[in-house]
Amino acid sequence: MIIVMKSHAAPKEIEDVVKRVEELGYKIHLSRGEARTIIGVIGADEHLIANSTFEVMDGVERTMRVMQPYKMASRDFSASDTVIEVGGVPIGCKRIVVMAGPCSVESREMILETAHLVKAAGATVLRGGAFKPRSSPYSFQGLGEEGLKYLAEAREQTGLPIITEVMSTDDVELVGEYTDIFQVGARNMQNYSLLKVLGKQRKPVFLKRGMSGTIQELLMSAEYILAGGNMQVMLCERGIRTYETATRNTFDINAIPVLKEQSHLPVVADPSHGTGMWQYVAPVAKAAVAAGADALMIEVHPNPARAWSDGAQSLTPERFAKLMADLRLIAAAVGREI
Amino acid sequence: MIIVMKSHAAPKEIEDVVKRVEELGYKIHLSRGEARTIIGVIGADEHLIANSTFEVMDGVERTMRVMQPYKMASRDFSASDTVIEVGGVPIGCKRIVVMAGPCSVESREMILETAHLVKAAGATVLRGGAFKPRSSPYSFQGLGEEGLKYLAEAREQTGLPIITEVMSTDDVELVGEYTDIFQVGARNMQNYSLLKVLGKQRKPVFLKRGMSGTIQELLMSAEYILAGGNMQVMLCERGIRTYETATRNTFDINAIPVLKEQSHLPVVADPSHGTGMWQYVAPVAKAAVAAGADALMIEVHPNPARAWSDGAQSLTPERFAKLMADLRLIAAAVGREI
Amino acid sequence: MIIVMKSHAAPKEIEDVVKRVEELGYKIHLSRGEARTIIGVIGADEHLIANSTFEVMDGVERTMRVMQPYKMASRDFSASDTVIEVGGVPIGCKRIVVMAGPCSVESREMILETAHLVKAAGATVLRGGAFKPRSSPYSFQGLGEEGLKYLAEAREQTGLPIITEVMSTDDVELVGEYTDIFQVGARNMQNYSLLKVLGKQRKPVFLKRGMSGTIQELLMSAEYILAGGNMQVMLCERGIRTYETATRNTFDINAIPVLKEQSHLPVVADPSHGTGMWQYVAPVAKAAVAAGADALMIEVHPNPARAWSDGAQSLTPERFAKLMADLRLIAAAVGREI
Amino acid sequence: MIIVMKSHAAPKEIEDVVKRVEELGYKIHLSRGEARTIIGVIGADEHLIANSTFEVMDGVERTMRVMQPYKMASRDFSASDTVIEVGGVPIGCKRIVVMAGPCSVESREMILETAHLVKAAGATVLRGGAFKPRSSPYSFQGLGEEGLKYLAEAREQTGLPIITEVMSTDDVELVGEYTDIFQVGARNMQNYSLLKVLGKQRKPVFLKRGMSGTIQELLMSAEYILAGGNMQVMLCERGIRTYETATRNTFDINAIPVLKEQSHLPVVADPSHGTGMWQYVAPVAKAAVAAGADALMIEVHPNPARAWSDGAQSLTPERFAKLMADLRLIAAAVGREI
Repeated sequence: MIIVMKSHAAPKEIEDVVKRVEELGYKIHLSRGEARTIIGVIGADEHLIANSTFEVMDGVERTMRVMQPYKMASRDFSASDTVIEVGGVPIGCKRIVVMAGPCSVESREMILETAHLVKAAGATVLRGGAFKPRSSPYSFQGLGEEGLKYLAEAREQTGLPIITEVMSTDDVELVGEYTDIFQVGARNMQNYSLLKVLGKQRKPVFLKRGMSGTIQELLMSAEYILAGGNMQVMLCERGIRTYETATRNTFDINAIPVLKEQSHLPVVADPSHGTGMWQYVAPVAKAAVAAGADALMIEVHPNPARAWSDGAQSLTPERFAKLMADLRLIAAAVGREI
Repeated sequence: MIIVMKSHAAPKEIEDVVKRVEELGYKIHLSRGEARTIIGVIGADEHLIANSTFEVMDGVERTMRVMQPYKMASRDFSASDTVIEVGGVPIGCKRIVVMAGPCSVESREMILETAHLVKAAGATVLRGGAFKPRSSPYSFQGLGEEGLKYLAEAREQTGLPIITEVMSTDDVELVGEYTDIFQVGARNMQNYSLLKVLGKQRKPVFLKRGMSGTIQELLMSAEYILAGGNMQVMLCERGIRTYETATRNTFDINAIPVLKEQSHLPVVADPSHGTGMWQYVAPVAKAAVAAGADALMIEVHPNPARAWSDGAQSLTPERFAKLMADLRLIAAAVGREI
Repeated sequence: MIIVMKSHAAPKEIEDVVKRVEELGYKIHLSRGEARTIIGVIGADEHLIANSTFEVMDGVERTMRVMQPYKMASRDFSASDTVIEVGGVPIGCKRIVVMAGPCSVESREMILETAHLVKAAGATVLRGGAFKPRSSPYSFQGLGEEGLKYLAEAREQTGLPIITEVMSTDDVELVGEYTDIFQVGARNMQNYSLLKVLGKQRKPVFLKRGMSGTIQELLMSAEYILAGGNMQVMLCERGIRTYETATRNTFDINAIPVLKEQSHLPVVADPSHGTGMWQYVAPVAKAAVAAGADALMIEVHPNPARAWSDGAQSLTPERFAKLMADLRLIAAAVGREI
Repeated sequence: MIIVMKSHAAPKEIEDVVKRVEELGYKIHLSRGEARTIIGVIGADEHLIANSTFEVMDGVERTMRVMQPYKMASRDFSASDTVIEVGGVPIGCKRIVVMAGPCSVESREMILETAHLVKAAGATVLRGGAFKPRSSPYSFQGLGEEGLKYLAEAREQTGLPIITEVMSTDDVELVGEYTDIFQVGARNMQNYSLLKVLGKQRKPVFLKRGMSGTIQELLMSAEYILAGGNMQVMLCERGIRTYETATRNTFDINAIPVLKEQSHLPVVADPSHGTGMWQYVAPVAKAAVAAGADALMIEVHPNPARAWSDGAQSLTPERFAKLMADLRLIAAAVGREI
């Protein structure tokens, strides 16, 4: 960390900051410029210091962090890419994994039908929500355990591993009995109670970026799970909230190369939420693969106009099959496969 | 809801939409303009329909909601302002309530000292965190139940009711044994599992706006608690995330009159998080009172430079006392008191 | 336009709105719902009415626009894609056009060298700034006319048509003597004086989206040029300003399919500004092609570390040549060529 | 400036950066931490170096600026507040200045009527647009010179100095013949050609923050005018663009104390654009005064429902008179007057 003193900081103020740094067990490196004195804080554990400790001291103008505040999620921690294996499907390899299925599990028939259709098109993981975070208390909230059972049955019939969302610490055990991957939704990216419990699980976690989560915060949230002992974390870009209203969210394509550079964890793209409108899902899915995503999550519904949630962004099985064919070409163009 | 058809929508497409509306139990009102056909959906329960149901239908260009998607939180539900009484302190009245205290309860001595100081300066509710949402897993996470006990002791000594954050459904019962008001933090504004449990409690809930929560979403989250049966909800503006980095958050002063217009619930301003820097807390606190806030939440720490969290935005007790004196003048200027 | 009246709007208030609509020459369509009266405004020229005219009338709750506020820029105006031909290079066709070159023209040698290098790698248009918008008055402001002359010489030597920025109405004539395409920078997207003058020119205009411009505003700015009589407008997505600071801007990949759907004008992607960091330019350039962009603009500098502006986002000629090879594969995968 | 090297930067890479710094005429200060080498760049003219010069060098991870990139606009340049006198009205003093009038000058009668009404209510500067930046080419674009003449006549009748917008370098001379203050609109905050010309004028400039302008960028734009030799610049907060759609813009109340801390220039608040809806103008105007604004700009129209522009955010003369009375109380509460 670097502490920039004000231009007229008194010697006593500089001394106090220096003392405080040393008290916390760090070494200092003092640089007196013409305009400002700058205090470098030296020590291996920069991620343990809070900037605000110094920002309130008299004479301090600003602090700047030199190292990232996360550790296990960073490239420095692991030079090689983390590969997560789920039911025989490795995620984070040359082969791009496509997770597909409906927003919500609506009935046994519906999820079984969708599972067979997405498998036929080439998906290798089945998604489906049983516990649904809905902005209105009056909306359908998911089938709960019943939905989990139908998902498990779909897995049995198709061989596809399943991913489903867990919204609360209360449900981790129950969801864990059925799912192959725990999904943490955007609204829970900073639900630290939940992240801590998932750090104790031995199943992979699919962590979605919050609607206004920075890339650094996403990695800090991953760090919660990693620090808890669970090394199987996937990072998902699903669109962020901006001023633009032509689409439901703004898919941050830049986040894909940034995450690949800064972290060793697999990166997943969710163009369904990233756009919010089915007609833009295909171009953005292709873009995500071109930019280097390791996996995609795509909402597919047998009849979007009848969907109980997120119909507007769901592909029909036909459109999904067409997209898979197109994605194979893009994957090949970037030296990967689907 | 209004459904705008595409300019070249086929008669069959229009017919299908009309059928679907009727199937859902609503009446329709058809308007054939020169360029577009528009279908009005008529019924008292507009907040129950999802836009996406229609947005995926062939020939539909767009849908527009006529009524707000919340009901009990709206002004239409209650013309008079809701007043919440906590330990003899009414919130939502002429007298502006000031909730003050440290970000975290750090020790018994520290919270007792702060409680006496903020009371002396005129605060009427004591705040302090025992369970802390921290972006880093390596940061201090709060004293937990020990912190709650110290808060209760501070209440006993000073007579100030207390407010403290609850982060997880697991902790609602425990926190409820001690606190007078449940605080829901910005990161949990859309933690629906938590909101549902709080809807079953019989203690007031202080609901913070999420970092990128819209005003409408804040009201929808309040609706979750209200619909659960708990009518004692306060809404807190605490700054939103924007592109500006000169301050930690951008305090949305507009939200105060908007919330007062659209809802009957008391509105609280948190200039500490709203700015993130102690030197801007006083001007923004005054602004919030001038704009019509019913209450303020302000972080006060006996020694901000030693604070275990949020030191940069905490006032010293002296600065807080000075601010309270200034706020009394502003309150009087807008026909209120502190 | 649709006018939603308040729930308790008086009959007189409704009547006044109706009168006002008729006075402006539109027909009305009245719908009395259970909760709200809704007034539809019918007429071919909805883009001519301002919402605010009605929003201030007593009893009005809200207005909603049915049609887009632009006309000539919309798909309704032209079903077929506009193709712009510049020096023998058609833009908006199967072949994706790559415009490359330095941020600023720094010297004769430098622009000639770069021109030959980008041509060799496959670029078909040469970019280079002679008039530079710089956030600091102390930064290099461009070579002015001298720079334009060097660009013209580079065109002569390589046969590449050139594009360069025009910042002010004062410079339109001068820049027009040299350039093949007028570039309007992000900061000038809503410089209406400039747009009006460009509407009178007979050379193509390359219009960049403003840092916080919505897609609709970008199309409205294009409308200024089109309405002036110049039908040769290209739309450029170059990254928008969001809360994310890991990259200089957030490239809005969604904007590409949205613009292709809503407008007939060619769409260009600028991944150099869209990311602001050279190491992310290649993945985002590939993504843009995968998503359907008609052209790319890419900053290339013979020695980025010595660049007088935007060095951090410039590719070396070697990296650019490598990128062009990769882009050819992506283009083929989406049925296009480079 | 501080240059942070990558963790595995080679000695040669460090050496190259050091050489480059010295070549540019700065001294260096090297600090070898356990994890990173950090290079401090020492010299009085940090605002002259571009970060990107170093960010592209091999082995460099990041650069951080120590000093602000502006100089004459900063508090360091002038400890005392700048006071600007316009037609006998000092701006930046104890007395808060209120500039009021219509968005556009619509006719002679209308501006004369409004001028008398706002003067009677206590306004001390008259505003009114003759050249109007409108997002649609089909909207009313202002009366041009005719409007300027009516404004001048209003000044003659009332004694109020006038402020009006200049949109283009072409119009500076003409507008300067009539106006007392040049207004630069939000869309032109980074129209550097215009700022340079205004730096040569000898009349005050009222500079509005761009819709997505940072506080630092606003000060950099002011620097353009100051560096040109015109020291009479006012800074105006007028709301920024965020994801919130309940109001037209988000008024950044924090910007007021930040600007007062970082700059010596007078700070003006524009709650009309800052909210975009007349019913929120009064609370936000009061908030701005409570937060320390030196002046207010408020749109007043004799008949907002008939306004040719911005009717939705204009106050009637009656509402404006009521607001002025309320503002006097707030001003007194913060030790100022109106």
